[in-house]
Amino acid sequence: MKKGKISSYVVKRMPRYYRFLGDMIEEGEIKISSGEIARRLKLTPSQVRQDFNCFGEFGMQGYGYNVIQLRQEIGEILGIKKMSRAVIVGAGNIGQAICDSISFEKRGCRLVGIYDNSPEIIGKIVGEHGEHQVKGMEALAELCQKEGGSHLPDLAVICVSKKSARSVCEQLIALGIKNFWNFTQFDINLHFDDVNAENVHLGDSLLTLVYNINRNNCEAK
Amino acid sequence: MKKGKISSYVVKRMPRYYRFLGDMIEEGEIKISSGEIARRLKLTPSQVRQDFNCFGEFGMQGYGYNVIQLRQEIGEILGIKKMSRAVIVGAGNIGQAICDSISFEKRGCRLVGIYDNSPEIIGKIVGEHGEHQVKGMEALAELCQKEGGSHLPDLAVICVSKKSARSVCEQLIALGIKNFWNFTQFDINLHFDDVNAENVHLGDSLLTLVYNINRNNCEAK
Repeated sequence: MKKGKISSYVVKRMPRYYRFLGDMIEEGEIKISSGEIARRLKLTPSQVRQDFNCFGEFGMQGYGYNVIQLRQEIGEILGIKKMSRAVIVGAGNIGQAICDSISFEKRGCRLVGIYDNSPEIIGKIVGEHGEHQVKGMEALAELCQKEGGSHLPDLAVICVSKKSARSVCEQLIALGIKNFWNFTQFDINLHFDDVNAENVHLGDSLLTLVYNINRNNCEAK
Repeated sequence: MKKGKISSYVVKRMPRYYRFLGDMIEEGEIKISSGEIARRLKLTPSQVRQDFNCFGEFGMQGYGYNVIQLRQEIGEILGIKKMSRAVIVGAGNIGQAICDSISFEKRGCRLVGIYDNSPEIIGKIVGEHGEHQVKGMEALAELCQKEGGSHLPDLAVICVSKKSARSVCEQLIALGIKNFWNFTQFDINLHFDDVNAENVHLGDSLLTLVYNINRNNCEAK
Protein backbone atom coordinates (compact mmCIF):
# COMPACT_ATOMS: atom_id res chain seq x y z
CA MET A 1 0.00 0.00 0.00
CA LYS A 2 1.29 3.46 -0.81
CA LYS A 3 2.02 5.79 2.06
CA GLY A 4 1.28 9.49 2.41
CA LYS A 5 -1.73 11.66 3.06
CA ILE A 6 -4.81 10.67 1.09
CA SER A 7 -7.38 13.38 0.36
CA SER A 8 -10.56 13.15 2.41
CA TYR A 9 -12.56 13.19 -0.84
CA VAL A 10 -10.85 9.98 -1.95
CA VAL A 11 -11.42 8.42 1.48
CA LYS A 12 -15.12 9.31 1.29
CA ARG A 13 -15.44 7.51 -2.06
CA MET A 14 -13.85 4.26 -0.87
CA PRO A 15 -16.90 3.04 1.11
CA ARG A 16 -19.00 3.80 -1.94
CA TYR A 17 -16.77 1.65 -4.17
CA TYR A 18 -16.87 -1.05 -1.50
CA ARG A 19 -20.66 -1.00 -1.39
CA PHE A 20 -20.94 -0.90 -5.19
CA LEU A 21 -18.59 -3.88 -5.61
CA GLY A 22 -20.72 -5.80 -3.07
CA ASP A 23 -23.73 -5.16 -5.33
CA MET A 24 -21.70 -6.35 -8.36
CA ILE A 25 -20.86 -9.61 -6.59
CA GLU A 26 -24.55 -10.15 -5.78
CA GLU A 27 -25.34 -9.57 -9.46
CA GLY A 28 -22.78 -12.24 -10.39
CA GLU A 29 -20.22 -9.94 -12.03
CA ILE A 30 -16.66 -11.29 -12.10
CA LYS A 31 -14.67 -8.58 -13.91
CA ILE A 32 -15.24 -4.86 -14.22
CA SER A 33 -13.34 -2.05 -15.93
CA SER A 34 -12.65 1.37 -14.44
CA GLY A 35 -14.76 2.77 -17.29
CA GLU A 36 -17.75 0.66 -16.26
CA ILE A 37 -17.31 1.53 -12.56
CA ALA A 38 -17.18 5.20 -13.56
CA ARG A 39 -20.27 4.94 -15.76
CA ARG A 40 -22.33 3.23 -13.05
CA LEU A 41 -21.21 5.63 -10.29
CA LYS A 42 -21.35 8.76 -12.49
CA LEU A 43 -17.62 9.45 -12.08
CA THR A 44 -14.92 9.70 -14.75
CA PRO A 45 -12.72 6.66 -15.56
CA SER A 46 -9.56 8.64 -14.77
CA GLN A 47 -10.98 9.63 -11.38
CA VAL A 48 -11.65 5.96 -10.55
CA ARG A 49 -8.13 4.95 -11.65
CA GLN A 50 -6.57 7.83 -9.72
CA ASP A 51 -8.56 6.95 -6.60
CA PHE A 52 -7.41 3.33 -6.73
CA ASN A 53 -3.83 4.39 -7.43
CA CYS A 54 -3.75 6.39 -4.19
CA PHE A 55 -3.78 3.09 -2.35
CA GLY A 56 -1.54 1.03 -4.59
CA GLU A 57 -1.93 -1.11 -7.69
CA PHE A 58 -5.07 -3.10 -8.35
CA GLY A 59 -5.68 -5.15 -11.48
CA MET A 60 -4.19 -4.58 -14.87
CA GLN A 61 -5.12 -1.76 -17.20
CA GLY A 62 -7.07 -2.99 -20.18
CA TYR A 63 -8.04 -6.26 -18.47
CA GLY A 64 -10.37 -4.82 -15.85
CA TYR A 65 -10.50 -5.62 -12.18
CA ASN A 66 -11.42 -8.88 -10.50
CA VAL A 67 -14.54 -7.76 -8.57
CA ILE A 68 -14.10 -10.02 -5.53
CA GLN A 69 -10.39 -9.29 -5.19
CA LEU A 70 -10.82 -5.54 -5.64
CA ARG A 71 -13.55 -5.46 -2.99
CA GLN A 72 -11.37 -7.45 -0.58
CA GLU A 73 -8.45 -5.10 -1.10
CA ILE A 74 -10.62 -2.01 -0.54
CA GLY A 75 -12.06 -3.69 2.56
CA GLU A 76 -8.55 -4.25 3.88
CA ILE A 77 -7.61 -0.62 3.20
CA LEU A 78 -10.73 0.47 5.09
CA GLY A 79 -9.68 -1.81 7.95
CA ILE A 80 -12.81 -3.92 8.18
CA LYS A 81 -10.87 -6.95 9.41
CA LYS A 82 -9.52 -5.15 12.49
CA MET A 83 -12.88 -5.26 14.30
CA SER A 84 -12.93 -1.99 16.20
CA ARG A 85 -14.83 -2.04 19.51
CA ALA A 86 -17.84 0.29 19.37
CA VAL A 87 -20.23 1.54 22.05
CA ILE A 88 -23.44 3.53 21.64
CA VAL A 89 -23.92 6.37 24.11
CA GLY A 90 -27.52 7.56 24.31
CA ALA A 91 -30.25 4.96 23.90
CA GLY A 92 -33.10 7.21 22.78
CA ASN A 93 -34.90 6.84 19.44
CA ILE A 94 -31.83 7.34 17.26
CA GLY A 95 -29.47 5.31 19.48
CA GLN A 96 -31.87 2.38 19.56
CA ALA A 97 -32.50 2.59 15.81
CA ILE A 98 -28.73 2.53 15.17
CA CYS A 99 -28.38 -0.42 17.53
CA ASP A 100 -31.22 -2.31 15.82
CA SER A 101 -30.45 -1.46 12.18
CA ILE A 102 -26.76 -0.97 11.52
CA SER A 103 -24.71 -4.02 10.58
CA PHE A 104 -21.66 -3.09 12.62
CA GLU A 105 -19.85 -6.36 11.90
CA LYS A 106 -20.01 -5.82 8.15
CA ARG A 107 -18.25 -2.49 8.68
CA GLY A 108 -15.38 -3.74 10.79
CA CYS A 109 -16.92 -3.04 14.20
CA ARG A 110 -18.15 -5.06 17.13
CA LEU A 111 -20.86 -3.33 19.15
CA VAL A 112 -19.86 -4.08 22.75
CA GLY A 113 -22.46 -2.07 24.62
CA ILE A 114 -25.15 0.60 24.69
CA TYR A 115 -25.30 3.14 27.52
CA ASP A 116 -27.61 5.84 28.81
CA ASN A 117 -28.05 7.80 32.02
CA SER A 118 -31.83 7.72 32.15
CA PRO A 119 -33.31 5.31 34.73
CA GLU A 120 -36.33 4.68 32.46
CA ILE A 121 -34.09 3.42 29.67
CA ILE A 122 -31.41 1.53 31.64
CA GLY A 123 -32.19 -2.19 31.63
CA LYS A 124 -34.14 -2.09 28.37
CA ILE A 125 -33.44 -4.94 25.93
CA VAL A 126 -32.48 -3.69 22.46
CA GLY A 127 -30.75 -4.87 19.27
CA GLU A 128 -32.15 -6.66 16.22
CA HIS A 129 -32.19 -9.95 18.12
CA GLY A 130 -32.46 -8.48 21.63
CA GLU A 131 -28.74 -9.07 22.15
CA HIS A 132 -28.04 -5.87 24.11
CA GLN A 133 -29.26 -4.46 27.39
CA VAL A 134 -28.91 -0.72 28.01
CA LYS A 135 -26.50 -0.06 30.89
CA GLY A 136 -25.75 3.03 32.95
CA MET A 137 -22.82 5.34 32.29
CA GLU A 138 -20.89 3.99 35.30
CA ALA A 139 -20.79 0.61 33.54
CA LEU A 140 -19.10 2.31 30.57
CA ALA A 141 -16.51 3.87 32.89
CA GLU A 142 -15.85 0.39 34.35
CA LEU A 143 -15.46 -1.10 30.88
CA CYS A 144 -12.96 1.59 29.86
CA GLN A 145 -10.83 1.04 32.97
CA LYS A 146 -11.03 -2.77 33.03
CA GLU A 147 -7.76 -4.72 32.76
CA GLY A 148 -5.52 -1.73 32.24
CA GLY A 149 -7.65 -0.26 29.47
CA SER A 150 -7.50 -3.31 27.20
CA HIS A 151 -11.30 -3.14 26.75
CA LEU A 152 -11.31 0.56 25.89
CA PRO A 153 -13.76 1.12 23.01
CA ASP A 154 -12.18 2.31 19.76
CA LEU A 155 -15.19 4.44 19.00
CA ALA A 156 -18.35 5.82 20.57
CA VAL A 157 -21.58 6.42 18.64
CA ILE A 158 -22.95 9.61 20.19
CA CYS A 159 -26.76 9.78 20.15
CA VAL A 160 -27.46 12.16 23.03
CA SER A 161 -29.28 15.49 22.92
CA LYS A 162 -27.41 18.58 21.77
CA LYS A 163 -27.49 20.09 25.24
CA SER A 164 -25.80 17.11 26.92
CA ALA A 165 -23.40 16.46 24.01
CA ARG A 166 -20.52 18.58 25.31
CA SER A 167 -20.46 17.08 28.82
CA VAL A 168 -20.91 13.52 27.53
CA CYS A 169 -17.99 14.01 25.13
CA GLU A 170 -15.83 15.46 27.92
CA GLN A 171 -16.62 12.40 30.01
CA LEU A 172 -15.78 9.97 27.19
CA ILE A 173 -12.58 11.77 26.24
CA ALA A 174 -11.51 11.66 29.90
CA LEU A 175 -12.11 7.89 29.79
CA GLY A 176 -9.75 7.67 26.81
CA ILE A 177 -12.18 7.43 23.89
CA LYS A 178 -10.83 9.28 20.85
CA ASN A 179 -13.14 8.43 17.96
CA PHE A 180 -16.74 9.47 17.60
CA TRP A 181 -19.56 8.68 15.22
CA ASN A 182 -21.52 11.80 15.96
CA PHE A 183 -25.31 11.97 15.56
CA THR A 184 -25.70 15.12 17.67
CA GLN A 185 -25.88 18.69 16.42
CA PHE A 186 -22.78 19.50 18.46
CA ASP A 187 -19.52 19.73 16.47
CA ILE A 188 -17.18 17.56 18.56
CA ASN A 189 -14.09 18.29 16.46
CA LEU A 190 -14.56 22.07 16.75
CA HIS A 191 -14.51 21.88 20.55
CA PHE A 192 -11.91 19.22 21.36
CA ASP A 193 -8.41 18.64 20.02
CA ASP A 194 -6.96 15.24 19.16
CA VAL A 195 -10.30 13.64 18.53
CA ASN A 196 -11.58 12.16 15.31
CA ALA A 197 -15.27 12.68 14.59
CA GLU A 198 -17.38 11.50 11.70
CA ASN A 199 -20.46 13.70 11.75
CA VAL A 200 -23.94 12.67 10.68
CA HIS A 201 -25.66 16.04 10.88
CA LEU A 202 -29.18 14.96 9.94
CA GLY A 203 -30.63 18.45 10.33
CA ASP A 204 -28.00 19.92 7.98
CA SER A 205 -28.68 17.15 5.49
CA LEU A 206 -32.43 17.90 5.50
CA LEU A 207 -31.74 21.64 5.06
CA THR A 208 -29.51 20.91 2.06
CA LEU A 209 -32.37 18.98 0.47
CA VAL A 210 -34.83 21.78 1.29
CA TYR A 211 -32.49 24.30 -0.37
CA ASN A 212 -32.27 22.19 -3.53
CA ILE A 213 -36.05 21.69 -3.66
CA ASN A 214 -36.71 25.42 -3.39
CA ARG A 215 -34.00 26.36 -5.88
CA ASN A 216 -35.39 23.88 -8.43
CA ASN A 217 -38.90 25.24 -7.86
CA CYS A 218 -37.66 28.79 -8.47
CA GLU A 219 -35.85 27.77 -11.65
CA ALA A 220 -38.94 25.97 -12.96
CA LYS A 221 -41.07 29.14 -12.68
CA MET B 1 -29.99 37.35 -4.20
CA LYS B 2 -27.40 36.63 -6.87
CA LYS B 3 -28.30 34.19 -9.62
CA GLY B 4 -26.18 31.46 -11.15
CA LYS B 5 -24.99 28.03 -10.15
CA ILE B 6 -23.68 27.80 -6.60
CA SER B 7 -21.14 25.08 -5.88
CA SER B 8 -22.46 22.14 -3.90
CA TYR B 9 -19.65 22.68 -1.37
CA VAL B 10 -20.97 26.16 -0.58
CA VAL B 11 -24.53 24.82 -0.36
CA LYS B 12 -23.38 22.14 2.11
CA ARG B 13 -21.82 24.79 4.36
CA MET B 14 -24.94 26.98 4.54
CA PRO B 15 -26.86 24.71 6.99
CA ARG B 16 -23.74 24.67 9.15
CA TYR B 17 -23.61 28.48 9.26
CA TYR B 18 -27.33 28.51 9.98
CA ARG B 19 -26.92 26.09 12.91
CA PHE B 20 -23.86 27.91 14.22
CA LEU B 21 -25.65 31.28 14.15
CA GLY B 22 -28.55 29.70 16.08
CA ASP B 23 -26.01 28.73 18.77
CA MET B 24 -24.63 32.30 18.77
CA ILE B 25 -28.12 33.71 19.34
CA GLU B 26 -28.63 31.30 22.26
CA GLU B 27 -25.32 32.50 23.70
CA GLY B 28 -26.54 36.09 23.45
CA GLU B 29 -24.15 37.24 20.69
CA ILE B 30 -25.37 40.23 18.67
CA LYS B 31 -22.54 40.91 16.19
CA ILE B 32 -19.95 38.61 14.71
CA SER B 33 -17.13 39.11 12.21
CA SER B 34 -16.28 36.76 9.34
CA GLY B 35 -12.94 36.23 11.11
CA GLU B 36 -14.66 35.03 14.26
CA ILE B 37 -17.07 32.79 12.31
CA ALA B 38 -14.05 31.32 10.50
CA ARG B 39 -12.12 30.76 13.73
CA ARG B 40 -15.02 29.00 15.43
CA LEU B 41 -15.84 26.83 12.40
CA LYS B 42 -12.20 26.17 11.47
CA LEU B 43 -12.55 27.83 8.06
CA THR B 44 -10.66 30.80 6.63
CA PRO B 45 -12.17 34.32 6.84
CA SER B 46 -11.96 34.72 3.07
CA GLN B 47 -13.81 31.42 2.58
CA VAL B 48 -16.61 32.65 4.86
CA ARG B 49 -16.83 35.97 3.00
CA GLN B 50 -16.76 34.25 -0.37
CA ASP B 51 -19.50 31.83 0.70
CA PHE B 52 -21.76 34.65 1.83
CA ASN B 53 -20.99 36.65 -1.32
CA CYS B 54 -22.32 33.78 -3.46
CA PHE B 55 -25.78 34.67 -2.22
CA GLY B 56 -25.57 38.45 -2.12
CA GLU B 57 -24.42 41.12 0.27
CA PHE B 58 -24.72 40.66 4.02
CA GLY B 59 -23.44 43.15 6.58
CA MET B 60 -20.61 45.61 6.12
CA GLN B 61 -16.95 44.67 6.02
CA GLY B 62 -15.16 45.79 9.16
CA TYR B 63 -18.39 46.16 11.14
CA GLY B 64 -19.24 42.49 11.38
CA TYR B 65 -22.58 40.85 10.80
CA ASN B 66 -25.78 41.21 12.79
CA VAL B 67 -26.22 37.61 14.00
CA ILE B 68 -30.03 37.51 13.96
CA GLN B 69 -30.31 39.18 10.56
CA LEU B 70 -27.60 37.02 9.00
CA ARG B 71 -29.28 33.86 10.26
CA GLN B 72 -32.65 35.02 8.93
CA GLU B 73 -31.17 35.74 5.52
CA ILE B 74 -29.45 32.35 5.34
CA GLY B 75 -32.73 30.73 6.44
CA GLU B 76 -34.54 32.49 3.61
CA ILE B 77 -31.91 31.36 1.11
CA LEU B 78 -32.32 27.79 2.36
CA GLY B 79 -36.08 28.17 1.92
CA ILE B 80 -37.16 27.33 5.45
CA LYS B 81 -40.23 29.57 5.21
CA LYS B 82 -41.67 27.69 2.23
CA MET B 83 -42.75 24.70 4.37
CA SER B 84 -42.23 21.76 2.03
CA ARG B 85 -44.58 18.82 2.52
CA ALA B 86 -42.69 15.71 3.64
CA VAL B 87 -43.71 12.07 4.00
CA ILE B 88 -41.76 9.19 5.53
CA VAL B 89 -41.89 5.94 3.59
CA GLY B 90 -40.85 2.94 5.69
CA ALA B 91 -41.80 2.95 9.38
CA GLY B 92 -39.18 0.53 10.71
CA ASN B 93 -36.57 1.48 13.33
CA ILE B 94 -34.96 4.27 11.34
CA GLY B 95 -38.22 5.66 9.93
CA GLN B 96 -39.80 5.81 13.38
CA ALA B 97 -36.66 7.36 14.92
CA ILE B 98 -36.67 10.05 12.20
CA CYS B 99 -40.39 10.66 12.81
CA ASP B 100 -39.84 10.92 16.59
CA SER B 101 -36.59 12.90 16.63
CA ILE B 102 -36.23 15.25 13.69
CA SER B 103 -37.65 18.77 14.05
CA PHE B 104 -39.03 19.00 10.53
CA GLU B 105 -40.72 22.37 11.12
CA LYS B 106 -37.43 24.02 12.10
CA ARG B 107 -36.01 22.92 8.75
CA GLY B 108 -38.79 24.23 6.55
CA CYS B 109 -40.81 21.02 6.33
CA ARG B 110 -44.17 19.79 7.50
CA LEU B 111 -44.36 16.04 8.04
CA VAL B 112 -47.74 15.12 6.56
CA GLY B 113 -47.63 11.35 6.94
CA ILE B 114 -45.72 8.14 7.54
CA TYR B 115 -46.36 5.06 5.40
CA ASP B 116 -45.42 1.41 5.32
CA ASN B 117 -46.66 -1.74 3.61
CA SER B 118 -46.34 -4.09 6.56
CA PRO B 119 -49.66 -5.05 8.23
CA GLU B 120 -47.89 -5.31 11.62
CA ILE B 121 -46.77 -1.68 11.43
CA ILE B 122 -49.81 -0.04 9.78
CA GLY B 123 -51.99 1.61 12.42
CA LYS B 124 -49.15 2.14 14.90
CA ILE B 125 -49.08 5.52 16.65
CA VAL B 126 -45.73 7.30 16.27
CA GLY B 127 -44.17 10.77 16.56
CA GLU B 128 -42.74 12.60 19.55
CA HIS B 129 -46.25 13.41 20.79
CA GLY B 130 -48.03 10.48 19.13
CA GLU B 131 -49.25 12.82 16.41
CA HIS B 132 -48.90 10.36 13.51
CA GLN B 133 -50.43 7.02 12.67
CA VAL B 134 -48.66 4.77 10.17
CA LYS B 135 -50.80 4.32 7.05
CA GLY B 136 -50.60 1.89 4.15
CA MET B 137 -49.02 2.73 0.80
CA GLU B 138 -52.44 3.03 -0.90
CA ALA B 139 -53.16 5.98 1.44
CA LEU B 140 -50.02 7.68 0.09
CA ALA B 141 -51.20 7.11 -3.49
CA GLU B 142 -54.54 8.69 -2.56
CA LEU B 143 -52.81 11.69 -0.96
CA CYS B 144 -50.68 12.25 -4.08
CA GLN B 145 -53.70 12.17 -6.39
CA LYS B 146 -56.06 14.18 -4.17
CA GLU B 147 -57.48 17.45 -5.56
CA GLY B 148 -55.51 17.42 -8.80
CA GLY B 149 -52.19 16.79 -7.09
CA SER B 150 -52.28 19.84 -4.82
CA HIS B 151 -51.37 17.65 -1.82
CA LEU B 152 -48.40 16.01 -3.58
CA PRO B 153 -45.52 15.77 -1.10
CA ASP B 154 -42.46 17.83 -2.00
CA LEU B 155 -40.17 15.18 -0.58
CA ALA B 156 -40.16 11.60 0.65
CA VAL B 157 -37.89 10.33 3.42
CA ILE B 158 -36.96 6.82 2.27
CA CYS B 159 -36.36 4.41 5.17
CA VAL B 160 -37.04 1.06 3.52
CA SER B 161 -34.69 -1.89 3.15
CA LYS B 162 -32.13 -1.88 0.35
CA LYS B 163 -33.90 -4.70 -1.47
CA SER B 164 -37.24 -2.86 -1.67
CA ALA B 165 -35.68 0.57 -2.29
CA ARG B 166 -35.76 0.42 -6.08
CA SER B 167 -39.41 -0.61 -6.40
CA VAL B 168 -40.54 1.84 -3.69
CA CYS B 169 -38.74 4.67 -5.50
CA GLU B 170 -40.29 3.64 -8.83
CA GLN B 171 -43.71 3.76 -7.19
CA LEU B 172 -43.10 7.20 -5.64
CA ILE B 173 -41.64 8.66 -8.84
CA ALA B 174 -44.70 7.37 -10.74
CA LEU B 175 -46.87 9.22 -8.18
CA GLY B 176 -44.97 12.43 -8.99
CA ILE B 177 -42.53 12.67 -6.05
CA LYS B 178 -39.20 14.10 -7.20
CA ASN B 179 -37.16 14.74 -4.04
CA PHE B 180 -35.79 12.13 -1.68
CA TRP B 181 -34.06 12.15 1.67
CA ASN B 182 -32.49 8.77 1.25
CA PHE B 183 -31.61 6.56 4.24
CA THR B 184 -31.27 3.38 2.18
CA GLN B 185 -28.08 1.92 0.74
CA PHE B 186 -29.57 2.24 -2.73
CA ASP B 187 -28.28 5.20 -4.80
CA ILE B 188 -31.53 6.73 -6.08
CA ASN B 189 -29.83 9.36 -8.24
CA LEU B 190 -27.68 6.77 -10.02
CA HIS B 191 -30.76 4.83 -11.12
CA PHE B 192 -33.35 7.49 -11.94
CA ASP B 193 -33.10 10.70 -13.96
CA ASP B 194 -34.70 14.00 -12.97
CA VAL B 195 -34.76 13.21 -9.28
CA ASN B 196 -33.00 15.03 -6.49
CA ALA B 197 -31.66 12.87 -3.68
CA GLU B 198 -29.87 13.81 -0.50
CA ASN B 199 -28.17 10.65 0.67
CA VAL B 200 -27.55 9.68 4.29
CA HIS B 201 -25.41 6.61 3.72
CA LEU B 202 -24.91 5.57 7.35
CA GLY B 203 -22.87 2.49 6.45
CA ASP B 204 -20.48 4.54 4.31
CA SER B 205 -20.15 7.06 7.12
CA LEU B 206 -19.22 4.33 9.62
CA LEU B 207 -16.68 2.86 7.16
CA THR B 208 -15.05 6.28 6.74
CA LEU B 209 -14.65 6.49 10.52
CA VAL B 210 -13.26 2.94 10.66
CA TYR B 211 -10.71 3.84 7.97
CA ASN B 212 -9.58 6.92 9.91
CA ILE B 213 -9.31 4.94 13.18
CA ASN B 214 -7.15 2.28 11.56
CA ARG B 215 -4.98 4.77 9.70
CA ASN B 216 -4.33 6.73 12.91
CA ASN B 217 -3.50 3.50 14.73
CA CYS B 218 -1.01 2.57 11.99
CA GLU B 219 0.61 6.02 12.10
CA ALA B 220 0.90 5.87 15.88
CA LYS B 221 2.83 2.60 15.71
